[in-house]
Amino acid sequence: MRLRNKPWAQDEIDKEPSIVIAHPEEYKGKWKELFGYNNPIHIEVGTGKGQFLTRMGQANPNINYIGIEKYTSVIHSAMENVRNEAVDNVKLLNKDVLNLGDYFQDGEIDRVYINFTDPWPKARHEKRRLTHEGFLNLYESVLKPNGEIHFKTDNQALFEYSLHSFSKYGLILNKVSLDLHNSDMVGNIMTEYEEKFSSKGMRIYRCEAVYR
Amino acid sequence: MRLRNKPWAQDEIDKEPSIVIAHPEEYKGKWKELFGYNNPIHIEVGTGKGQFLTRMGQANPNINYIGIEKYTSVIHSAMENVRNEAVDNVKLLNKDVLNLGDYFQDGEIDRVYINFTDPWPKARHEKRRLTHEGFLNLYESVLKPNGEIHFKTDNQALFEYSLHSFSKYGLILNKVSLDLHNSDMVGNIMTEYEEKFSSKGMRIYRCEAVYR
Repeated sequence: MRLRNKPWAQDEIDKEPSIVIAHPEEYKGKWKELFGYNNPIHIEVGTGKGQFLTRMGQANPNINYIGIEKYTSVIHSAMENVRNEAVDNVKLLNKDVLNLGDYFQDGEIDRVYINFTDPWPKARHEKRRLTHEGFLNLYESVLKPNGEIHFKTDNQALFEYSLHSFSKYGLILNKVSLDLHNSDMVGNIMTEYEEKFSSKGMRIYRCEAVYR
Repeated sequence: MRLRNKPWAQDEIDKEPSIVIAHPEEYKGKWKELFGYNNPIHIEVGTGKGQFLTRMGQANPNINYIGIEKYTSVIHSAMENVRNEAVDNVKLLNKDVLNLGDYFQDGEIDRVYINFTDPWPKARHEKRRLTHEGFLNLYESVLKPNGEIHFKTDNQALFEYSLHSFSKYGLILNKVSLDLHNSDMVGNIMTEYEEKFSSKGMRIYRCEAVYR
């Protein structure tokens, strides 16, 4: 993703402490208290500009969403999305996914979304891919038993790799789609990337990976 | 596959008993004696007209191949292929894959090939798909520990289903290719179907699934 330099982004984020949670470690094990509802919590790792999570929040008022994005200039756009649409079941963390375990307790999360993440194509960067074993282990440490990963990408090589990585970890692949926009899936909510790539006729790949 | 009526097929097959093994149950546990070499044995389930297995036999003289095909008129073509090319490391069985356990001992087989198998698209026919759990169990009963399935198809829905079925069974997916003919795979040997479909620009899907 192209990163715009937005020197004002941090100041703007600081003005919305109820959307972008500054100290998420304080809510570890207590997210349901913050949301004020005893609803499932779904997180998105690498939430980008936030269109997906904002629309998911609108479409599913009985689910609470938390988006994690390390780039301040990017999460600034997500914050604007959430604020402008006034969705109160979406929170954002300007944090690195690597530290997920500092913010959530074991079993606190019901589902992880990974959408159009950086493919890190070089073999030496394999560990940085959000579907690498190390991350699958990290997600497991915060997910409920039989928790789910929902994964979408336009990147064929990343999808091929991820099918390997998921199966090697022992996850069950469900609802695999090798051409999502020509499938029978209903209610798909698109990310910014997805709109762009699918409009160019590129295939979108999707699967769900379920922990045993 | 279109089945031609070949009333003479059985007679022709009977003339080549060293290629089409009439009573494979007699070789259960003894296939290495028949081949006369202590080489790995790879089988192809639903071997069709036999181009793949004949060429594999030619390319890999240190591997012994056994093709299983239930249609007499079809295996007749495979027999002609093997005979005309004079490959002595390929044998054929005019049998139903369902009875695999009658022909091979536990651990006797190193690898199973499934190429362009009938997709059986209707849900009520799921159990007939050669990548269904029931067949995965059957293959496991004749494969060595860590045995492999090598699977190719042009059928997107069958490939999606098979990724689910393999992962649910606990198999590890390796070398997944969502567009084999635009990948870096070298030495791919094509089936008759594969030549036809790929020449029309259709994607060929491939993966290896490894037992734990």
